[in-house]
Amino acid sequence: MSLEGRFDDGVVRVGGDARQRYHDSRGYGYPLSGNEIALAPVEAAHLLYRGDLEAVIGRDGERLAFREFVAREPGENFGVRFLVYADLRERGFYLSPAAEPWLSEPPGGEADFAVFPRGKGPGDGEIAYALRVIGERTDVPAAELHEGVLAVVDEESEITYFEVERRDPTGTSRNDAALPEHCEADLLADRVVVWEPPLELYEKSFYGQPLEGREYDEPTLQCSLLEAAYLAERGALALEAEAVRERGHEVEGERFERRLTVYTELRERGVVPKTGYKFGADFRTYADVESVENLGHSELLVRVHPAGYVFEPRDLALDVRLAHGVRKTMAFALVDGGPDGTGEIEWWSLERLTP
Amino acid sequence: MSLEGRFDDGVVRVGGDARQRYHDSRGYGYPLSGNEIALAPVEAAHLLYRGDLEAVIGRDGERLAFREFVAREPGENFGVRFLVYADLRERGFYLSPAAEPWLSEPPGGEADFAVFPRGKGPGDGEIAYALRVIGERTDVPAAELHEGVLAVVDEESEITYFEVERRDPTGTSRNDAALPEHCEADLLADRVVVWEPPLELYEKSFYGQPLEGREYDEPTLQCSLLEAAYLAERGALALEAEAVRERGHEVEGERFERRLTVYTELRERGVVPKTGYKFGADFRTYADVESVENLGHSELLVRVHPAGYVFEPRDLALDVRLAHGVRKTMAFALVDGGPDGTGEIEWWSLERLTP
Repeated sequence: MSLEGRFDDGVVRVGGDARQRYHDSRGYGYPLSGNEIALAPVEAAHLLYRGDLEAVIGRDGERLAFREFVAREPGENFGVRFLVYADLRERGFYLSPAAEPWLSEPPGGEADFAVFPRGKGPGDGEIAYALRVIGERTDVPAAELHEGVLAVVDEESEITYFEVERRDPTGTSRNDAALPEHCEADLLADRVVVWEPPLELYEKSFYGQPLEGREYDEPTLQCSLLEAAYLAERGALALEAEAVRERGHEVEGERFERRLTVYTELRERGVVPKTGYKFGADFRTYADVESVENLGHSELLVRVHPAGYVFEPRDLALDVRLAHGVRKTMAFALVDGGPDGTGEIEWWSLERLTP
Repeated sequence: MSLEGRFDDGVVRVGGDARQRYHDSRGYGYPLSGNEIALAPVEAAHLLYRGDLEAVIGRDGERLAFREFVAREPGENFGVRFLVYADLRERGFYLSPAAEPWLSEPPGGEADFAVFPRGKGPGDGEIAYALRVIGERTDVPAAELHEGVLAVVDEESEITYFEVERRDPTGTSRNDAALPEHCEADLLADRVVVWEPPLELYEKSFYGQPLEGREYDEPTLQCSLLEAAYLAERGALALEAEAVRERGHEVEGERFERRLTVYTELRERGVVPKTGYKFGADFRTYADVESVENLGHSELLVRVHPAGYVFEPRDLALDVRLAHGVRKTMAFALVDGGPDGTGEIEWWSLERLTP
């Protein structure tokens, strides 16, 4: 026998044997007194959609089937939350609204749902992850990033899941053990040529890029302005660090200072950053460089943003997809302003997840 | 015996047996009277770099070796042009500045060099392609796109070559042969649900996306606002096309009109556009859809921009790399304004090229 629910103060109450039928055996809603339960609108919509609930009786006594229920449900996010709820149910997961009284300890942040481990439900006291749901047109301010899963529903209602984590890069690369002193160098437009520095500067520490077609035992190195600013600050080049930084600012503006902050922190963490240009990123990184000859696979693509940056889901999709395609993890370095742009860095990684 | 050149009015003149040695046998410079030739600065720099030219005598009589020559060469683009010139020489190609008198008929546009077919030189009357060289920080206004090759030198002096072509998409997809009439549909936030339309609307014409978990012989379709606007304009939905377009404008602004222009033109060309969200693009396209069951590989990723758009090389690198990784071609649809945003479309494709 099919049951009916009725709207009451933002939830849908269902009596009869609803508690056993929907809550205890299938993880919908939360128990009220007796056998009655309360369903969130998205849960009620799913039961209507599946044909498990016959109708919901509105406040004015009207009978709402799935179509009418969805059409009158306000809140622009309802449609995308329903799609994700249904998708995860379809995949065999139970999930609840990330709020009391569905959960006794709801996850913080902007989470919409708590997803339970496969085979577990709301009463088992375990949460696999907090899930936030957005449409592809919803911007995501960096300050709203939380560990958990972000589900993005695209304009044709396909869903992409991203695992969002904090990710501090670390490595064991020998970087500054033996930097040379005052190598001859010229600042040319937006790059620097270092004339015949010790071979180790390239071969062991992986600074610069040799000019091809010349003798290899005395390579002339081309360095990026970032590499040159970093080296000049440490006395390795016969160039004023200030002049290199000024040139960087001329050609890139504040982005240069942010990138130099991140470049420096990566080097100090034992990670070698090289340009990520070919991947549309700021850096690709190598955690364990012993020599360029035996260079391993680079692990991360890093994109640098100011801390107040606002992500567009489409750009996230592009970055994460590309990184995945080249077997790297997409990382974001969010640099906190400060008057000179050299503040704290917050590190995040985003990866595709198949629930 | 090594030769010396001397600066004279923007070129480097070399006498001795220079004509035979540099021009006739290796494609450098253009002949003057007798055995003398004139070299562009980039050609002279390359001969200096290779050690084939001993030095260049400056206007004040100073002797310039490679390092001094490069350092005093003005023009911020000289460094990147030299790197690309040397790279193509290294790969076995001859190339000349894209100007008279190096060439009797220089290519138009913003070309820096004319690259000759492998085994050919400046005297053979054939050009493989016109080449433009930029640094990764140089913006490219859409109006400056020309057929040919774009070489981008990144901050660490690695070079990426893009083949730039006009590309009008065409296809044979059955689109509007049998559109239904006035299907029931609801506009929900930023998508449209079409209630149990004829199966063909999805299966043959590939509109929408079925809501899963329901009977398949009467699928309920979720359509994007673009699909819905297109269908509503053709009377296929019981919705006002104007209302759908207005909703589109609310959630996307003018971008929606541009994308609808491109969506419509693709459909009219027999090509099925579906969302490109997962690839960070506006559309992926299918040229020959007979049925969704036998859907082939989608050929293009399309990004829509206004005609006045300015490309950043890093974004181009990201788009083209991603498209390549999923075996598609990256296409750009540039939509000419007009007061209502529904103007002419110019189509371009960019692909990675290994010279």
